[in-house]
Amino acid sequence: MKFVVIGGDAAGMSAASKAKRNMPDLEVVTLEATQDVSYSACGMPYNIAEPARVMDDLIVRKAEVFRSKQGIDLRLGHKAVSIDRKNKKVVCEVQGNGQSEISYDKLLIANGARAIRPDIPGIDLPRVMVLKSLQDGRAIKQFLGNKNVKKVLIIGMGYIGLEMAEAFHSIGAEVTMVKPGPRLLAFMPEEMAELVKKELSDKGVRCFPGVAVNSLHNDGPGLKVCASSGDIQADLVLVSIGVTPNSELAAGASLDLGPKKSIAVDRKLKTSDPDIFAAGDCADAFHILTGKRVWIPLALRANRAGWAVADNVTGGQVELPGIMGTAVFKVLDLEVARTGLSFEEASREGYEPVQEMIKSRSRAHAHPGNQSIYVHLVADRNSGKLLGGTMVGKEGVAHRIDSVAVALHAGMSVEEFFQCDMAYAPPFSPVWDPLLTAANQLLKKL
Amino acid sequence: MKFVVIGGDAAGMSAASKAKRNMPDLEVVTLEATQDVSYSACGMPYNIAEPARVMDDLIVRKAEVFRSKQGIDLRLGHKAVSIDRKNKKVVCEVQGNGQSEISYDKLLIANGARAIRPDIPGIDLPRVMVLKSLQDGRAIKQFLGNKNVKKVLIIGMGYIGLEMAEAFHSIGAEVTMVKPGPRLLAFMPEEMAELVKKELSDKGVRCFPGVAVNSLHNDGPGLKVCASSGDIQADLVLVSIGVTPNSELAAGASLDLGPKKSIAVDRKLKTSDPDIFAAGDCADAFHILTGKRVWIPLALRANRAGWAVADNVTGGQVELPGIMGTAVFKVLDLEVARTGLSFEEASREGYEPVQEMIKSRSRAHAHPGNQSIYVHLVADRNSGKLLGGTMVGKEGVAHRIDSVAVALHAGMSVEEFFQCDMAYAPPFSPVWDPLLTAANQLLKKL
Repeated sequence: MKFVVIGGDAAGMSAASKAKRNMPDLEVVTLEATQDVSYSACGMPYNIAEPARVMDDLIVRKAEVFRSKQGIDLRLGHKAVSIDRKNKKVVCEVQGNGQSEISYDKLLIANGARAIRPDIPGIDLPRVMVLKSLQDGRAIKQFLGNKNVKKVLIIGMGYIGLEMAEAFHSIGAEVTMVKPGPRLLAFMPEEMAELVKKELSDKGVRCFPGVAVNSLHNDGPGLKVCASSGDIQADLVLVSIGVTPNSELAAGASLDLGPKKSIAVDRKLKTSDPDIFAAGDCADAFHILTGKRVWIPLALRANRAGWAVADNVTGGQVELPGIMGTAVFKVLDLEVARTGLSFEEASREGYEPVQEMIKSRSRAHAHPGNQSIYVHLVADRNSGKLLGGTMVGKEGVAHRIDSVAVALHAGMSVEEFFQCDMAYAPPFSPVWDPLLTAANQLLKKL
Repeated sequence: MKFVVIGGDAAGMSAASKAKRNMPDLEVVTLEATQDVSYSACGMPYNIAEPARVMDDLIVRKAEVFRSKQGIDLRLGHKAVSIDRKNKKVVCEVQGNGQSEISYDKLLIANGARAIRPDIPGIDLPRVMVLKSLQDGRAIKQFLGNKNVKKVLIIGMGYIGLEMAEAFHSIGAEVTMVKPGPRLLAFMPEEMAELVKKELSDKGVRCFPGVAVNSLHNDGPGLKVCASSGDIQADLVLVSIGVTPNSELAAGASLDLGPKKSIAVDRKLKTSDPDIFAAGDCADAFHILTGKRVWIPLALRANRAGWAVADNVTGGQVELPGIMGTAVFKVLDLEVARTGLSFEEASREGYEPVQEMIKSRSRAHAHPGNQSIYVHLVADRNSGKLLGGTMVGKEGVAHRIDSVAVALHAGMSVEEFFQCDMAYAPPFSPVWDPLLTAANQLLKKL
């Protein structure tokens, strides 16, 4: 049997490697459009923050290892351009070498997502960059190494934009952030978003929601950015307004699409063609709470889905329940995390949500190093069940959110969550963990 | 109605305060044997580590505040010596002032636990100390301030002993630890306990399991400790071999006792007398997994039980499901945490346990500051359910254990736990959180 994988990053290489482990005599071919496989894309902002490190530090396993140690036929510079489902073939453009056809028995589409570039004049100027692929990361790092970058403008204020604000700030650049929408981190309550804004402004990062960029122009050695608030000078512009799934290949083969043009897959990761799977940032997933299809491209799901595809290609019947949208990021000295549904999402999904935000402390009464920690929980008035959580604080946020995620997976009520026996020691939390305090306050509203 | 509370720390003052909030015209009398109420006992090792801080920093709320702001009749220096259940009266010894009788409608016994002092010659010498009450903490701190303490011997290697090893070490003392039993932290696998032992020895704390102390003697300005391994010189000896519930009062009133002579209570915190409740370190609890009575005195349960008693005294019908035995402590630069049942406990309880220990990392591949993190999980082969977890590492342990605790409360299988959508960002974890990696490995054994 021949298993062909389109895309050589998280989902693709997880699937290729596990399929080969499961069934050593399986023929596995991986087609990767770029020269890079198996790298930690999420690590790029932190790598960029350290000029002394090379970007290739982020490569988890090299192409040669996949070939020689794992026996995967890994073809770099092979960009899949069409799928002939009838004859079960993938057509590739081979870098500088025309086209080639690869037949498959089972196919996995794992070609990820790409950064969105808005359609405005000047968006393709060389100093206007994005960060999605390792090649993007190398380009930014090289640019920072070669040019005198004093002023950076970031368009967008999502996870990556904020992580990159930290990275640019840490290497001494003056950072300005703009986005057209009025709210920073719209999934969280305004009061919490203000904490993030304050952290940015305390560290000197200027942050202007409600500012749209209309055009970008070369201006002497830098750029002039014409924005709704006036002109902004920048040596480098990072466009970080989100990503979109690379689903054109699937759409061209008439496979069903899901939310936001992602590739629709069932719980076995199968597309509408039973011999074709999709996984990673190009594919959708079921939301555990709502049961609906969502497109929330995150690294853990990509890896998990890759493994499941491998199992299913090699004879298994693995079904993934879905995702909770659990995410965490660091911005300067703040940790920000979320899981489940926000209040607005819960309303849209037809729940009758109630919410509570509390401020507590990261350590016990009178313990040195104590920091504020903010917890926002959402529950459903009808069922009493927990629906989601958001946290912000300088410590103790990143791992606490997982407790909420586990509670959501288990379908716990707020009362059940409040009864959980959590760990306490003075260096790590108050006697009542901030999560329990939040649950207790939320209970009063139910 | 008159609600009398015996004991003015976590459980007692939580109950007194909440009862008064629930029902402002309730007469609430609290009888506290010492002069201290409402303090963070768990904070004492950290306070002792900082000579410049006063021990009274750990007082959360002062006696005057309970009296003037909350209207609680708080009587210090009132040691309850007997309960006349027939006439619903408590007899007290009043410091320097004979006896007094206090009648009650509802009574809460929350007089805590005391440090165990083994019956060996010299155990009552002034330089042989324990740490349980705030007065114990003051005595140690005063001793350290007045005497030249170069060598400390700690008898016992539980949480408090280890936290105090850190405290004594941080103020420059040479610390030796002994215990008669052969295993350090017997609830965890030997391999994990070795990590704790290594941390102690790396920092210069000498640790000798399997060494019994036979007697203690004044010897010039210090002490000579006769141990099974030979004589040990010490300027101060801390006896930290555990605590025992203060249940003599309850036993004298013929109330039912539970495990380890703790006071037996039902899920409403009622003793065998329907007008008498017990809560905090003197009382037992139901273990969520086994449904059996256990005595695991920890601060969160004390606070939680105090609140539940207040609700039940003021007309509520609150039932607490019980405890999971979740605990965390810090020893030098290590975080150690546990929840649920250990492998041995699970065997004793009639499960057919399987276990797995994995070593992972606290941060993503190639992220600076990465530390090792060890996860040990136990599951039941018959049901596939998770039974317990233990973790050790230099960061990211304290809050991660709560995810396991929540999963245990929810009765999750290892497979369900493995499917949980956990947070990932490079500064906080690998893509596969160490908990997920451990669950995945454990699944292979089920």
